[in-house]
Amino acid sequence: MILSALLTSVGINLGLCFIFFTLYSILRKQPGNISVYAPRLVAEGKLQEDGQFNLDRLLPYAGWVRRAWKPSDDEFLSIAGLDAFVFMRIFVFSLKIFTFGGIVGILFLLPINYMGTQLRDDSEFQKKSLDSFSISNVNNGSNRLWIHFCAAYVFTGVVCTLLYYEYEYISSRRIACFYSSKPEPHQFTILIRGIPVPPGRTCNEAVESFFQEYHPSTYLSHSVVRRSSKLQILVTDAERLYRRLTQLKHKDAAPQRHRRDGCLGLFGHKVDIVDQYEKRLGDIADNVRIEQFSMVGKEVPAAFVSFKSRFGAAIALNIQEGVNPTDWITERAPEPHDVYWPFFSVTFIRRWISKMVAFVASNALTVLFLIPVALVQGLTHLDQLETMFPSLRGILRLTVVSQVITGYLPIQILHTFLSFVPPVMIMISSLQGYISWSQIQKSACTKVLWFTIWNIFFANVLSGSALYRLTIFLEPKEFPRVLAEAVPAQASFFIAYVVTSGWTNIAIELFQMIPLFYNYINRIFYGHTDDDFEAPSIPYHSEIPRILFFGLLGITYFILSPLILPFLLVYFCLGYIIYRNQFLNVYVPKFQTGGEFWPTVHNYTIFSLLLMHIIVIGIFGLKKLPLASASTLPLPILTLLFNEYCQKRFFPIFKGYPVECLIKKDREEQNDPCMSEFYDKLASVYNDPALMPVKYSGRFGSHNSPLLHSSEV
Amino acid sequence: MILSALLTSVGINLGLCFIFFTLYSILRKQPGNISVYAPRLVAEGKLQEDGQFNLDRLLPYAGWVRRAWKPSDDEFLSIAGLDAFVFMRIFVFSLKIFTFGGIVGILFLLPINYMGTQLRDDSEFQKKSLDSFSISNVNNGSNRLWIHFCAAYVFTGVVCTLLYYEYEYISSRRIACFYSSKPEPHQFTILIRGIPVPPGRTCNEAVESFFQEYHPSTYLSHSVVRRSSKLQILVTDAERLYRRLTQLKHKDAAPQRHRRDGCLGLFGHKVDIVDQYEKRLGDIADNVRIEQFSMVGKEVPAAFVSFKSRFGAAIALNIQEGVNPTDWITERAPEPHDVYWPFFSVTFIRRWISKMVAFVASNALTVLFLIPVALVQGLTHLDQLETMFPSLRGILRLTVVSQVITGYLPIQILHTFLSFVPPVMIMISSLQGYISWSQIQKSACTKVLWFTIWNIFFANVLSGSALYRLTIFLEPKEFPRVLAEAVPAQASFFIAYVVTSGWTNIAIELFQMIPLFYNYINRIFYGHTDDDFEAPSIPYHSEIPRILFFGLLGITYFILSPLILPFLLVYFCLGYIIYRNQFLNVYVPKFQTGGEFWPTVHNYTIFSLLLMHIIVIGIFGLKKLPLASASTLPLPILTLLFNEYCQKRFFPIFKGYPVECLIKKDREEQNDPCMSEFYDKLASVYNDPALMPVKYSGRFGSHNSPLLHSSEV
Repeated sequence: MILSALLTSVGINLGLCFIFFTLYSILRKQPGNISVYAPRLVAEGKLQEDGQFNLDRLLPYAGWVRRAWKPSDDEFLSIAGLDAFVFMRIFVFSLKIFTFGGIVGILFLLPINYMGTQLRDDSEFQKKSLDSFSISNVNNGSNRLWIHFCAAYVFTGVVCTLLYYEYEYISSRRIACFYSSKPEPHQFTILIRGIPVPPGRTCNEAVESFFQEYHPSTYLSHSVVRRSSKLQILVTDAERLYRRLTQLKHKDAAPQRHRRDGCLGLFGHKVDIVDQYEKRLGDIADNVRIEQFSMVGKEVPAAFVSFKSRFGAAIALNIQEGVNPTDWITERAPEPHDVYWPFFSVTFIRRWISKMVAFVASNALTVLFLIPVALVQGLTHLDQLETMFPSLRGILRLTVVSQVITGYLPIQILHTFLSFVPPVMIMISSLQGYISWSQIQKSACTKVLWFTIWNIFFANVLSGSALYRLTIFLEPKEFPRVLAEAVPAQASFFIAYVVTSGWTNIAIELFQMIPLFYNYINRIFYGHTDDDFEAPSIPYHSEIPRILFFGLLGITYFILSPLILPFLLVYFCLGYIIYRNQFLNVYVPKFQTGGEFWPTVHNYTIFSLLLMHIIVIGIFGLKKLPLASASTLPLPILTLLFNEYCQKRFFPIFKGYPVECLIKKDREEQNDPCMSEFYDKLASVYNDPALMPVKYSGRFGSHNSPLLHSSEV
Repeated sequence: MILSALLTSVGINLGLCFIFFTLYSILRKQPGNISVYAPRLVAEGKLQEDGQFNLDRLLPYAGWVRRAWKPSDDEFLSIAGLDAFVFMRIFVFSLKIFTFGGIVGILFLLPINYMGTQLRDDSEFQKKSLDSFSISNVNNGSNRLWIHFCAAYVFTGVVCTLLYYEYEYISSRRIACFYSSKPEPHQFTILIRGIPVPPGRTCNEAVESFFQEYHPSTYLSHSVVRRSSKLQILVTDAERLYRRLTQLKHKDAAPQRHRRDGCLGLFGHKVDIVDQYEKRLGDIADNVRIEQFSMVGKEVPAAFVSFKSRFGAAIALNIQEGVNPTDWITERAPEPHDVYWPFFSVTFIRRWISKMVAFVASNALTVLFLIPVALVQGLTHLDQLETMFPSLRGILRLTVVSQVITGYLPIQILHTFLSFVPPVMIMISSLQGYISWSQIQKSACTKVLWFTIWNIFFANVLSGSALYRLTIFLEPKEFPRVLAEAVPAQASFFIAYVVTSGWTNIAIELFQMIPLFYNYINRIFYGHTDDDFEAPSIPYHSEIPRILFFGLLGITYFILSPLILPFLLVYFCLGYIIYRNQFLNVYVPKFQTGGEFWPTVHNYTIFSLLLMHIIVIGIFGLKKLPLASASTLPLPILTLLFNEYCQKRFFPIFKGYPVECLIKKDREEQNDPCMSEFYDKLASVYNDPALMPVKYSGRFGSHNSPLLHSSEV
């Protein structure tokens, strides 16, 4: 890629971003789009649609930037929660390190690279290849490379120092959030799995007798988990039907209430669908009632056990309960609405096997992903298409069409396949036996991270088949050399990637293309449907890997081709302001992990640093400076030691809360009169929602009245 | 090596063993040797020296074998303790697997190997090379190798099954021992390190206020550790002097009481050494008193904190105490006499760094050990010796002398260097910041294990420099092939190793060569010294690796050269009976870890299996049976999964005791009247022995009387 091409690409993408921003600032003021651009505020009841029209609505206006910028850290934290705060810290941290990296890179490294003559690129400035700005252009054996060497050390030092302070800051925030939290059920509860049920007794009795025996002073109550997958399907059906019914009843559109009962609603007798729906709802409700009755016996050997204090729960959580370590396995309980009910795998062995299977599946997907993609991409070769669809030959031979098919289609196929990855990883993680959505998302996040590194970074860097790339890892000695040859060559590709993929993604995130589209479709075809409205939550498992990948690019290319850094800085600046806006207006947190995503970010940054070190060691080898290559060796070792220290110093804080905090919190609430009410609530809050008495019962006709009794089951 | 040479070697070593056994059965009956052959019984006061002579004493008699055999498992356990029991289980386990392996190997594999014609060894039976009995002799591509393939699977299955049941059995024994134990101080105590001392307060106050604040109902008492290394030296000096003094006083040998006070006791005035010693002891005691006074300020931020119940101690142990995870670090307390006082490294960081240093040091010693050995061995080349000592030329040219020097000296040098390794590893482990002898020994045991594998197994198998051998590990793809070529070639060496080194070591262990020698020297030169008498404890860190190494040889050579197994069986049979005898008569346990050595044995056996699998994969590759090679691949994976499961199923039992056991034990003793007395003892039992009032004070002259007051400090 030559310089002028890069500038063109930057121009186009800046233009695109500008258009998106302008459109956003106009569209967000249209009352119909409130549920797209401010669903959070709607859900909180802070905004109402305002039907009045005024001219101001049509003027682009950047006030949203100011509003997103305004809230202080504390305000933002209290509005968006700790997880969102941690998410924003990724941007802050990246901005810090890349500002430093950018200054060093542009002022010192870039001129040195440009002054080199290794590549003999004598074209005029505008037509210079981007490689002239990369380390490849420095002459072999040149002593100027020692400046790169120093830069590697200094940059690593700065990144590690900032990582340390960031970890410390987020830890302190986590503890502060805990201190300021109200009593919450999950703080008082643990999950017990692998309950050994003695013959002739139920799981319920086993749990009760065990905890009354061994934790008599702190044990409060428990609820045994039941196998409810069939029931869940029924309840979901009933709820969907109930929603539709309410919708129909609220509308006075009488013609819509009748349709024919035959095929596709076109033939047969005309019937009142409200009546029909009510009847069906009644049937389902009856089934639910029967199922709920039969559930009593279907116990899963798992239970949520609640304690009178946080400290009591922590004691039961942290000490092995039974003689057999695979019985009475304890786990932190998730927030009640965060529990993932469908998959409470039964035995220790089965859970362990499904973990293995998930491990193998996610790795296989990661390693072999590019094979089916390449196969499908192969189908788009023009000659193959022509033989498959001879009738299209005329169209396919048009220049525009052929350019689109050969140039655009393969990339689009890759993107389509890529967009399926986060949901698939979520699916794999949910098979792994996690019991909460937050854990599933955290685990999927890590999986997507490795997937991204492998299939975007390594796939581009080490061209060749997946198996060829795997063999690289079997020869660790060759690793630095191979990377040092391949990585700098891809510098211009990744600069273009930041400008196109990075910038555009951020703009689309702001513009909310897909929700906007759905919203229009909904409004045009179905009229306004406010009942279904639910504010979205941010998919951490796809967003965090995407952002961290740009961080990885910045860190690895800092020495090789510092030209990438200004573009990254633009990305992180845009990202900071846009995601702040989204958290304040769009996303509602579904769960709070208390900042547990940060250790992932930390580890990933350390990995990026190590990768950079390996490449730098290889580069100095290639550039015939073996002394520099050898002197870089301590750098990864020091980095690993630093990471080891951070693991000891901070990681335990993210696994649980210390005695000091627990007891302080417990004492604060000891004499709080609200606590007895809270304890009452605690006893029932971890019941499976499928087993709860059906709320809509009794409203529609007499079919449902028996359901009221089901609550007594 | 040819068959007849092996048989000769077996004959010689059997003869040697027989001589040792005969000598033992005579010498053990001599009253003077009681402190060598039954120090345990003497220490327990069960045996007294019997001066009377009778003829029976001179007759060899194998009654000791019967007596060693007789006690049941339970009796042995109650006499020797769980650690000795676990040690003996290594023999039982090895006997089980190698009996099975031996039957399969001798009946199936050996005939197949012998029937092969790959090596074309046409000599008569007695002169056949041992290689004719190894897998090398099977023809390339022969389908008979599938029997070896099946044997690998079946043997791995049997070993894993037995490993599982053994782990289960030892776990249950550990729990049973805990249930039957009396209340012991270390069960009620934890060690706290990294105590954050607020300015203006002492460590003592910080600990007291913290535990009274956060563990008010269970906290009992604590004792802060003090920096006492200087004091310890003084106390050790004083004790040595005191012992010598008592010795002199008990003896009526007046001439020994006087010596001259000049150089080497040859010149100067004649003085009464008892007076002199008493004066010196007085001086030291004064110093001790002064030091003990000044100790009050020298607090180390570490303390032993005792609780009213085992459960209370477990709670404080298992939950992170302070907000900063590097403060208030909790650790299980060792038994009071097991505490390693000298090295209470101060800060978290220092402890962590010394861990790193110890890690590097032990690895460097392991990897580079053979370099200095080879250098020293090089010095024994005859020509070099002749140039260094020209006067010896005549002697060196004698055949006998030259054979001894070239054949025997290098091996002896290696053995001398090897004998220094366990103490050096103990030293390195003690630098690592462990706070008890048992932990130091456990850690040294692991280090010696890896040392043995590297410097005996790999050094013999992969000849060449240490660095060459290291590069093998950088090319994992080549690993099976290299091993498959090298390992079978060393079969005859290792068979000879089992017969010579293994059998002889066991016989020497019984014979107690070195203690016997010391005992004679002592009796001849110093007369009888009973005061110094202390029964020895078994050095697990050098014995366990030695025995396990023979297990590794058996497992790796089972497929390659099953001829090794009968010799190993003899080794383990002898070992079983001899070590039982030693535990019953000689060794007194210094500490009880509760069987914590077993996980090491388990992991090491798994490692041996994996090594065997890798070699087998390589062998099938070399023998041109790629299908068998590929079909062996699942074997190591299944073994690793099995190990993973065992880690989850059993390992936690060895890290601590579950709530169930703790509370049962606590309740048992709740109403025990002895407990208040026990609590009183508990408050002072973890005081540094150097800070205890000096017991011998006041006995010798007036110098020491002030010391009595020091106990009030």
